[in-house]
Amino acid sequence: MFARYALIVLFLFVSPTLAAEPLPSWNDGASKTAIVEFVKLVTEEDSPDYVPPAERIAVFDNDGTLWAEKPAYSQLFYAVDRVKALAPSHPEWKDQQPFKGILDNDLESALAGGEEALMKIIMATHAGMTTDEFEAQVADWLETARHPETGKPFTGMVYQPMLEVLDYLRANGFKTFIVSGGGVELMRVFSEAVYGVPPEQVVGSSIKTEFQMRDGEPVLVKLPELNFIDDKAGKPVGINLHIGRRPIAAFGNSDGDLQMLQWSTSGEGPRLGVIVHHTDAEREWAYDRKSHVGKLDQALDEAPDRGWVVVDMKSDWEVIYPNGGQ
Amino acid sequence: MFARYALIVLFLFVSPTLAAEPLPSWNDGASKTAIVEFVKLVTEEDSPDYVPPAERIAVFDNDGTLWAEKPAYSQLFYAVDRVKALAPSHPEWKDQQPFKGILDNDLESALAGGEEALMKIIMATHAGMTTDEFEAQVADWLETARHPETGKPFTGMVYQPMLEVLDYLRANGFKTFIVSGGGVELMRVFSEAVYGVPPEQVVGSSIKTEFQMRDGEPVLVKLPELNFIDDKAGKPVGINLHIGRRPIAAFGNSDGDLQMLQWSTSGEGPRLGVIVHHTDAEREWAYDRKSHVGKLDQALDEAPDRGWVVVDMKSDWEVIYPNGGQ
Repeated sequence: MFARYALIVLFLFVSPTLAAEPLPSWNDGASKTAIVEFVKLVTEEDSPDYVPPAERIAVFDNDGTLWAEKPAYSQLFYAVDRVKALAPSHPEWKDQQPFKGILDNDLESALAGGEEALMKIIMATHAGMTTDEFEAQVADWLETARHPETGKPFTGMVYQPMLEVLDYLRANGFKTFIVSGGGVELMRVFSEAVYGVPPEQVVGSSIKTEFQMRDGEPVLVKLPELNFIDDKAGKPVGINLHIGRRPIAAFGNSDGDLQMLQWSTSGEGPRLGVIVHHTDAEREWAYDRKSHVGKLDQALDEAPDRGWVVVDMKSDWEVIYPNGGQ
Repeated sequence: MFARYALIVLFLFVSPTLAAEPLPSWNDGASKTAIVEFVKLVTEEDSPDYVPPAERIAVFDNDGTLWAEKPAYSQLFYAVDRVKALAPSHPEWKDQQPFKGILDNDLESALAGGEEALMKIIMATHAGMTTDEFEAQVADWLETARHPETGKPFTGMVYQPMLEVLDYLRANGFKTFIVSGGGVELMRVFSEAVYGVPPEQVVGSSIKTEFQMRDGEPVLVKLPELNFIDDKAGKPVGINLHIGRRPIAAFGNSDGDLQMLQWSTSGEGPRLGVIVHHTDAEREWAYDRKSHVGKLDQALDEAPDRGWVVVDMKSDWEVIYPNGGQ
C-alpha cells in the first residue's frame, strides 16, 4: 500500500518534467529554443506578453511545410492518377494535351502549356462530381497511391518534427490552422487523421460549388471554375476571410508563404515566424532559390530582418518522417 | 460544521438536477422537448445514434434567428449612420440617390433603386478602409447606436432563449457556427462577446480584400467588389467552403435559410432543423409569408415533411431579450 502511494507521489512529481520536454524529434539548437521560448512567453500567466487562448492562432502551410512536395505537389500526382482512371471515358484525350502527355507518362510535355494546361488537368479531375463523391475518390487514392521516388504513402511523408509542433502548440492552448495553396477539399480528407486539424481549420484554394436538388436530396456539385487561390498575397486574404483574426505564429517554407509570414508577424506583441528550409538532400530534398516547386528566395532574404526562425532541416531535425514514412 | 457538511452534500445532490434543466427561458412544450431530446440522442454514449464530438456541428442564421431584424437588418442601420458620418466629405451625395434619401431620412426613396442602390450604400460604407479600421468603426457604432423603435442597443436585441441554445449545445460538445447573409466582418466584431462564437466560426457574406504593404507594414484593404453572398443556395456552399463538414443541427427563421436547413437535415443519422417563427407582435414582431425582411414561406411549408421544429416565439419563449434588452 505504501509502495503504491509512493509510486503515485513519484509519478506526480516526475510527470511534469516528462511533459515539459517538448519536440523530441528536434535537435537542441536555436530553432527549437526559439519555438519553445515563444510558447512560454505567450502562455505563462505572469508573462507581460501573455496571450489569451482565444487569440493563440497558429497557421501552417502544407506542401513543403507539413509534408513533402518533391518532385511535384502530391495533388498533381492525384490529378495524374485520376486522368489515367478517367481516360477510358475520354478517348479524345489520347490526342489532346495536357492529357496526352499524362497518358504517355510524359509529365513535362503535359505541363508545357503552363498554367492553362494545369487548370485543364485540375478541372478535369476535381470538378463534375458532388463533394461527397470527390471526398470518396481522394480517400481511395490516399489508401493505395505511393510516391514515385520513395514508394511511401503520401500521408507517410509528413514531417514528424512538425507533427510535434502541431501537438505542442495545441497542448498549449493554440488553435492550429492549415493555410495552403493546395485544394481545400483534398486536404480535408486527411487533415484530421494525419495532422489533428479538423476540416473547419483548413484554409486552401478552391473551385466553385453549386447547390442542387437531385430527387429531393440536396447535393453540392463541384464546378470547373476557380473560386480562390490561397497562395502568396492570397494567404492573408484567406486567413482574414476564414479565420478573421491575425495569427500570432506562422510556419511556411517558400515564397508562397511570404505574405502570410509578413501578416502574421507584424501584429503587436510577440510573434513567431518559422521557415522550414529544405537542406537535407540525403533524407529528403535540398532546394530553395532556384527550385520550381517550393521556391524560397525573397522570404529567405527577409528572414533575418523580420526575426523569422529558419529551420535547417538537416541539422535541426533528428528524424524526418514518422516511423520512417511507412 | 455539520450544517455546512449537510449543505455541501445537499448541493452535490441537487446541483446535477439544476444543471440538467437546460433552456430555462423556454416554456415546456414540443419545441424545447425536441431540442433536448435531440441532444440526448447524439451525446449519450450508449445511444445507437451517438455522434462523436468532432462531428457535432451546429449552424445558426443571425438576422431574425439570433437577433432582431425588424424593421430592417441592423447592418443597414450601420450603413445609414456611416453615410451620414461620411457625408461632409461627399457633398455630391446631397443630390445623388441612394445617398440623398438617406441624408433626407427617407430610406424608402434611398432603397427604391433596389439591389443596385443597396450595393452602392454597402460599398460606400464597407470598402475603402483597412480591415482594422473597419473593425474599429463597427465597434464604435455598436457602443452608441440605438434601435430606432425600441431605443435598445442592437446587441441587446439578441434572443435570450437562443443564447441558451448556443450555450447548451456547446456544453454538450457541439461546435457552434453562425452562417448568415450578413457581412462576416461586421458580425465578427461582436460574435465572441455576445454569442460566444469566435471569429473563425462565423460564416457570412463578404466583399473582396487586397493585401498591401504600406511603409513596410502589411494591411488588408477592403475593396468595393462583392466576394460572396452567403444566403439561400449560397449557405450550403459557404458551409462547405468554410466548415467542410455537414452540420447535424441548423437554426434559421426565413426562406434564406431553406437550403441550409435542407442540407443540414438530409445527412444520415439524427438531424435537427429548427425555424424561429416570429409570432409575437407584442414583445417583438409578428411576420412570415408576406414580410420583405425575413420572409418565411417555402421553409414553413416544407417544415412538417422534413421534420423541422417550428418555434412559436410567443408561446415557446418565456423571455425575448436578456435583461429586457438593456
